[in-house]
Amino acid sequence: MTERVAHASLALESAMRDVADEIDRQFELLLPIPADPRARLYAAMRHAAIGGGKRLRPLLTFATARLFAVDPGCTARAATAVECIHVYSLIHDDLPAMDDDDVRRGKPTVHRAYDEATAILAGDCLHALAFEILAHPATHADPFVRAELVADLARAAGPAGMAGGQMMDLMAEQSSFDLATVTRCQALKTGALISCAVEAGAILGRIPPDARTGLRGYARDIGLAFQIADDILDVEGDEDAAGKKLRKDEAAGKETFLTLLGLDRAREQARLLVEQAIAHLHAYGEEADLLRDIARYTLERDR
Amino acid sequence: MTERVAHASLALESAMRDVADEIDRQFELLLPIPADPRARLYAAMRHAAIGGGKRLRPLLTFATARLFAVDPGCTARAATAVECIHVYSLIHDDLPAMDDDDVRRGKPTVHRAYDEATAILAGDCLHALAFEILAHPATHADPFVRAELVADLARAAGPAGMAGGQMMDLMAEQSSFDLATVTRCQALKTGALISCAVEAGAILGRIPPDARTGLRGYARDIGLAFQIADDILDVEGDEDAAGKKLRKDEAAGKETFLTLLGLDRAREQARLLVEQAIAHLHAYGEEADLLRDIARYTLERDR
Repeated sequence: MTERVAHASLALESAMRDVADEIDRQFELLLPIPADPRARLYAAMRHAAIGGGKRLRPLLTFATARLFAVDPGCTARAATAVECIHVYSLIHDDLPAMDDDDVRRGKPTVHRAYDEATAILAGDCLHALAFEILAHPATHADPFVRAELVADLARAAGPAGMAGGQMMDLMAEQSSFDLATVTRCQALKTGALISCAVEAGAILGRIPPDARTGLRGYARDIGLAFQIADDILDVEGDEDAAGKKLRKDEAAGKETFLTLLGLDRAREQARLLVEQAIAHLHAYGEEADLLRDIARYTLERDR
Repeated sequence: MTERVAHASLALESAMRDVADEIDRQFELLLPIPADPRARLYAAMRHAAIGGGKRLRPLLTFATARLFAVDPGCTARAATAVECIHVYSLIHDDLPAMDDDDVRRGKPTVHRAYDEATAILAGDCLHALAFEILAHPATHADPFVRAELVADLARAAGPAGMAGGQMMDLMAEQSSFDLATVTRCQALKTGALISCAVEAGAILGRIPPDARTGLRGYARDIGLAFQIADDILDVEGDEDAAGKKLRKDEAAGKETFLTLLGLDRAREQARLLVEQAIAHLHAYGEEADLLRDIARYTLERDR
């Protein structure tokens, strides 16, 4: 499958390819198919985890860890853990009882390629795997770092983060959210894990919480810009390039940034957020250029 | 609801009540209902987590931690994390795509009381919550202990543990398992988390892995005895006392310890396992009597 990455800088394109290759390599190592009745489960996990997606979250972990000269082996494991949570959430969100999607990353969704029970379990397994990876000494020699990575990812994944946001998103089909509620919903649903991906890089670099303010501001702003861009893509995008079904929010009658702000104001808002995200990185020099490129890319992507 | 606990010793009965109360108290603290669209999600988590079940796994964590004079507050948190995983697995296993159950712990299952999407998310949230609890400094001051607790629980929950066992169990409906495969399936599906519950007590007590051999043998044996007793209960038990639907294995044409061994040999095997489990505790004195009582109880329970 050819991946189109619109207008991305050469450095960003190259980093995206490297990170995507590394994440695939990590999943290959972590998910060898066993010679027992669990083979189907592992095959389903591999179907969802290997060879797909922008790997935006792992890229953010790598781009942040680079600021603090973290060992790339440690970064790869933490980035893979964050991606495990993202992939599990896609599997569960695609289920018939949730968004009922047939296509994801240009392939059949897991419950279509396998079956619903296998999809539920494959998601559950990737969820557990994320924490198994983080708690393992290979991720960092210092257990304090490992425990902090776990705490941060668990919070980002759970009811105060991603899963809580997905619940709000489901409720949005029945009630009419205002801009504050849509913002809060998206901050949980996508923002929490994007923030965690950045935070993981800082935790690996042993940066204390009060020195992470700039990075947290950056993550919050690109998370929101990413979601506004996603809403625009949902209306204007091409399903083949996106590798998933589009125009579902409209069909469900859900309020989005687009319905609440209109296209022009939404675009302007996303642009301002990206500027603001980049401004948050003022303390960092050239070594943060990849983070800056990622911020610009959130507006320019086509999938 | 009156709980019948057949033939349990007075000390065991009292410990079970105390642990059940403590676990309910922990969930009350952890799951206050928020004043936003996630209220339904939290209500579903509370429906599943509060006020039900034997709390066998938390009881094992308490009974083991007691051997090593662990702070009861630390034990309560670790025990609650293990129970989070158990409860999440019940929610997901009960889903229509899995075992399709309507009743659990004498109440409607979560997808019946709420809906499927909410049930999937409530399970996912309890799954994440388990690791958030363990990684928090309140669970243990030493991050090495916290990271080890996370590593152990994640392994026990994932594809090499509980979820892998559930996959094998689903496959058992299509293929004819021999005794070795049924044993392996059950060792993963129920054994892994029961072992983890015991192991958590030892980890909290800072007992090094090579000094946990006796406890591991104990946990392995009661895990298997518990499952054989469960198979017997499935055939001979009373649905009201069990608080769930019975005789499903037979309906699904699945091989179990009972179909493979016959009732008499299955009973004898369970009895031998309990004796063996108790023998594994020879290094411990009276302080291990609760663990011994729990071993005997696995055979005598009616739910």
